[in-house]
Amino acid sequence: MTRLRLPGLIDPHVHVRDLNQSHKEDWDSATAAALAGGITTILAMPNTQPPITDGAALAQYQAAAQARARCDYGLYFGAGPGNVESAARFAPQVAGMKMYLDSTFGDLKMDALSLLVEHCARWPKESPLLAHAEGHHVASAILAAHLAGRSIHICHVSRKDEIELIARARDKGYAVTCEVCPHHMFMTLDDCGLAPGYLEVRPRLATPADVAALWAHLADIDCFATDHAPHTRAEKESEKPPPGFPGLETALALWLTAAHQGRLTLEDLLARMHTNPRRIFNLPEQPDTWIEVDADCEWQPDASRMYSRAGWTPFVGWRLRGRVIAVTLRGQLAYDGERVLAQPGTGRDVMNSSYSV
Amino acid sequence: MTRLRLPGLIDPHVHVRDLNQSHKEDWDSATAAALAGGITTILAMPNTQPPITDGAALAQYQAAAQARARCDYGLYFGAGPGNVESAARFAPQVAGMKMYLDSTFGDLKMDALSLLVEHCARWPKESPLLAHAEGHHVASAILAAHLAGRSIHICHVSRKDEIELIARARDKGYAVTCEVCPHHMFMTLDDCGLAPGYLEVRPRLATPADVAALWAHLADIDCFATDHAPHTRAEKESEKPPPGFPGLETALALWLTAAHQGRLTLEDLLARMHTNPRRIFNLPEQPDTWIEVDADCEWQPDASRMYSRAGWTPFVGWRLRGRVIAVTLRGQLAYDGERVLAQPGTGRDVMNSSYSV
Repeated sequence: MTRLRLPGLIDPHVHVRDLNQSHKEDWDSATAAALAGGITTILAMPNTQPPITDGAALAQYQAAAQARARCDYGLYFGAGPGNVESAARFAPQVAGMKMYLDSTFGDLKMDALSLLVEHCARWPKESPLLAHAEGHHVASAILAAHLAGRSIHICHVSRKDEIELIARARDKGYAVTCEVCPHHMFMTLDDCGLAPGYLEVRPRLATPADVAALWAHLADIDCFATDHAPHTRAEKESEKPPPGFPGLETALALWLTAAHQGRLTLEDLLARMHTNPRRIFNLPEQPDTWIEVDADCEWQPDASRMYSRAGWTPFVGWRLRGRVIAVTLRGQLAYDGERVLAQPGTGRDVMNSSYSV
Repeated sequence: MTRLRLPGLIDPHVHVRDLNQSHKEDWDSATAAALAGGITTILAMPNTQPPITDGAALAQYQAAAQARARCDYGLYFGAGPGNVESAARFAPQVAGMKMYLDSTFGDLKMDALSLLVEHCARWPKESPLLAHAEGHHVASAILAAHLAGRSIHICHVSRKDEIELIARARDKGYAVTCEVCPHHMFMTLDDCGLAPGYLEVRPRLATPADVAALWAHLADIDCFATDHAPHTRAEKESEKPPPGFPGLETALALWLTAAHQGRLTLEDLLARMHTNPRRIFNLPEQPDTWIEVDADCEWQPDASRMYSRAGWTPFVGWRLRGRVIAVTLRGQLAYDGERVLAQPGTGRDVMNSSYSV
């Protein structure tokens, strides 16, 4: 067995749910799933119920995370039409601000160019600004951020024209970073084998040409995120299936399998699952933290053995190679390959300054 | 009477129609209307029926214009999904290429970011590239052109956030020019007084805040276009009224009235109706060409006395000050204040090299 010792991974794009949507996931189950996937820090999206677009909701989710999180975490603040003037004051408490320029789960979509421009201008430059932006909105977000003299992070890039535009902008010196998700790198809409409802995800699954372009532009992809977006089987089988895939417990194995196949190196993987997200999102070091992986272990994802409350995985039955066998977080064994040992409430907020070393 | 002698005006945004839509307008009636409005050069949009997106249609409209135009003209080529590879070869024959990124009359809308990027990359840099772009698409068009290392002209800007973005991009050195139309500078949706159907225009009439922002950014507005877009009364009163206003015969008087009111200077007007469009669209000089205006004449637009086949005007009954009393085109009296004297077929194509002086 080839045993690898790797740094604790960082997932900059997780939907934790909790509070009014705890049946889908909460801070307990989401962070257990993260640890089982080798991820020791998650950054959580604000399209929650209630949405994290004001101080009251932020405080509620901070309290929920503090009470239940088993791994370290940050919260994103959500940009909206109603918080253009107030958002900036919350920057010291959050990992960044997320802008929804395209439709997804929840009600945070901003249509007006003016909102994009205003949020870009007002959000503190030292705090990350992220965009769910597809098609023309990728270009719009890049230009608005550039004219505001600040950086922008494009979430879950999924299309050929988007990654090509991002690559060209980076070549010209624009401060643009981006992430991709496993489902956009390893699946297409036609070959996914998922039933209607289950295959709904935003951005949608794409074409072989899109997937090929993403792989061809690996050098322009800073982070591998999961966009872990749990919904239950009943919801995915309903008349209006919500978009989203769970992904925390399969991501590393999918990337390790690709590495085994020679599609990327382990260094490529670690840059995108640790070094780059840590730099882009200004994350503190986690002392005495590492994960151990059996690089040769072949296994097949099985939702009945997962910690996520979603209860299904789009990668069911895939033959993966590489499995997390232990996670040590701040000197404590947090996952032993079978059980999550870290207790709810032991995770720390990356924005809590007492945590910085 | 204050008699002004001005250069022949240029309208870079006219829908001439003709061929399958000659009942709305043709090269004869459109150019007669232009001359009656003091305009000696019009640049004609490609969302015709058939659309000017290939060589065959271009040749048809060139022949129609050559046969019927009474003033000088250029044709725009239309970008589409089907002519990414072929468009550039037509650049020497046209005044520029128009990209439709938002919905308007006709079927030329391009949705994909990839089409915008590809057309920006392939259209010859020395030929103008124009975009009907609203909201986020303004940003997208500006960035795509910039990354392709070329200029872009944003048509009929109508919103506060759009002109502010354009102004900021110009400040940062982006090669962006733009135009506004009288109906977006002198009307709002609420005060237009137009019946449903008649008030349909793209971009839509806006708000007082939008109008105020356009005026505040006059320095960033290069051209005054009309977006003359004739549809008949019957069409505007139909169940699916097509968007568009006629405007060739009222534009100069509206701007002169604003000048009389002190909202801009005559120099501002001439820069935007002659000097700037001539420079931006690389137009040849028209020798021995000028217009004469009675700057004190007060009059009210009356469609029954107009040359456009639209048969109505959104400015009916407005009290305007300043009226064209004569147009001389290449030494010939083309309009005497009552009658258009220039004959069909005497207009010249600005791209015909034999015309250059």
